[in-house]
Amino acid sequence: MATNHTPYLEKGLISIFTGEGKGKTSAAVGNSVRAAGHGLRVCLIFFAKGKRFDHGEFKILSSLPNVTLQSFGQAGWILKDISEETRKQAERAFEAASEAVTGGQYDLVVMDEIMIALTAGLVTTEQVIRMINAKPSYVELIMTGRGAPAELIELADLVSEIKAVKHPYTRGIKARKGIDY
Amino acid sequence: MATNHTPYLEKGLISIFTGEGKGKTSAAVGNSVRAAGHGLRVCLIFFAKGKRFDHGEFKILSSLPNVTLQSFGQAGWILKDISEETRKQAERAFEAASEAVTGGQYDLVVMDEIMIALTAGLVTTEQVIRMINAKPSYVELIMTGRGAPAELIELADLVSEIKAVKHPYTRGIKARKGIDY
Repeated sequence: MATNHTPYLEKGLISIFTGEGKGKTSAAVGNSVRAAGHGLRVCLIFFAKGKRFDHGEFKILSSLPNVTLQSFGQAGWILKDISEETRKQAERAFEAASEAVTGGQYDLVVMDEIMIALTAGLVTTEQVIRMINAKPSYVELIMTGRGAPAELIELADLVSEIKAVKHPYTRGIKARKGIDY
Repeated sequence: MATNHTPYLEKGLISIFTGEGKGKTSAAVGNSVRAAGHGLRVCLIFFAKGKRFDHGEFKILSSLPNVTLQSFGQAGWILKDISEETRKQAERAFEAASEAVTGGQYDLVVMDEIMIALTAGLVTTEQVIRMINAKPSYVELIMTGRGAPAELIELADLVSEIKAVKHPYTRGIKARKGIDY
C-alpha cells in the first residue's frame, strides 16, 4: 500500500553482505541504525532468528519509532532442520519482505539471512529477482547471508564479502550473550 | 578509575574488522547496539569522524544511556592531510581509548578507524599492544579500519576481512546521507 511519504532517497541501492566471516548481520544492523537516525523508515526481516527475541539488537531497534522488526524461522540455522514449519516460516518471511519492499511504507528494507533461505531452496533466486524488479527506485535493499548466488551479486550495487581470517568459534570459543546474540 | 560494576563478560575478546570493503564501522556499530541492548556499558571512540555529528548512528547511539561516544580527527580521512591538529586529535583519541579500555567503566570499547591512525603513523602498533596487555580480561575490544597490521591480527581472537566485491563509489555513485553517513 503506497503512502504519501516523500521518499528519503532518490535512488536506493541494493547491497549484499556475504561470506563466511562474522559481521554480516551486524553491518546490516549498523546501517539500519544510521538510517533510522536520519529518519528513514526501516524494516528488518530476519529469515532465521525465530522467536529468539533476547537478541540485544532487537531491544534497541524495536524501541525506535521508525523501525519495524519481523522475525521468522527457527532460533538456530534453518539449514539444520528443514521441516514443513521451516518451509512455511520462510514463505511468510519472503511475503513480509515483498510487502515491505513494494508496499511504499519503508525506505530501507533488510532481508537478514535471505541467502541461507536461498541455499536451502526455501526461496528461489528468481523470486528475489522478481521482487527487485518490482522495487520502487527509492527503496534501499540490504541482503545478508553466506553464499550469495552469482545472479544477485550481478544485480547488486554494493557487495561486501566478509572473510573469516580468524573466527573464535573455530578456536573453541562459544557464542556469548551480549556480544554474539 | 575502577568501578564496582560486575563485569558482564567473563572473557572479552579482541575483534578486528578490516579490509577495503564497506561495512567495517557498521559492523562495529551493530555489535555496539546488540551489547547495549543487553545492558553492557559501551564506549565508541571514532578516530576519524571529527565533528561530523550528523552521522545517523550518532543520533541513535548517543540517545542510549549506557553508550558513550567520543569523536576525534577530521570530517574526512585523516590520511589526506596530516596537520599538527590531526596529530593532536589522534593522540587525544588514543588517550581516550586507553582510558576507556583500562579504566573499568566499560565492557565493550570500539576503536573505529584506529587502523587509519596506525597507517598514518599517528599511533604506533606498540602503543596498541601495550594497551591490549593492560586490558582487564572482561573488556571486549573492537578495532576497525583497513590495513590492520600483522602483529594485531596475530593478537586478535576474531578477524573479519571485508572485501569489496562491488563498491558503489567505484561506479561513480556518491556517498548518500542517511545510508553512507
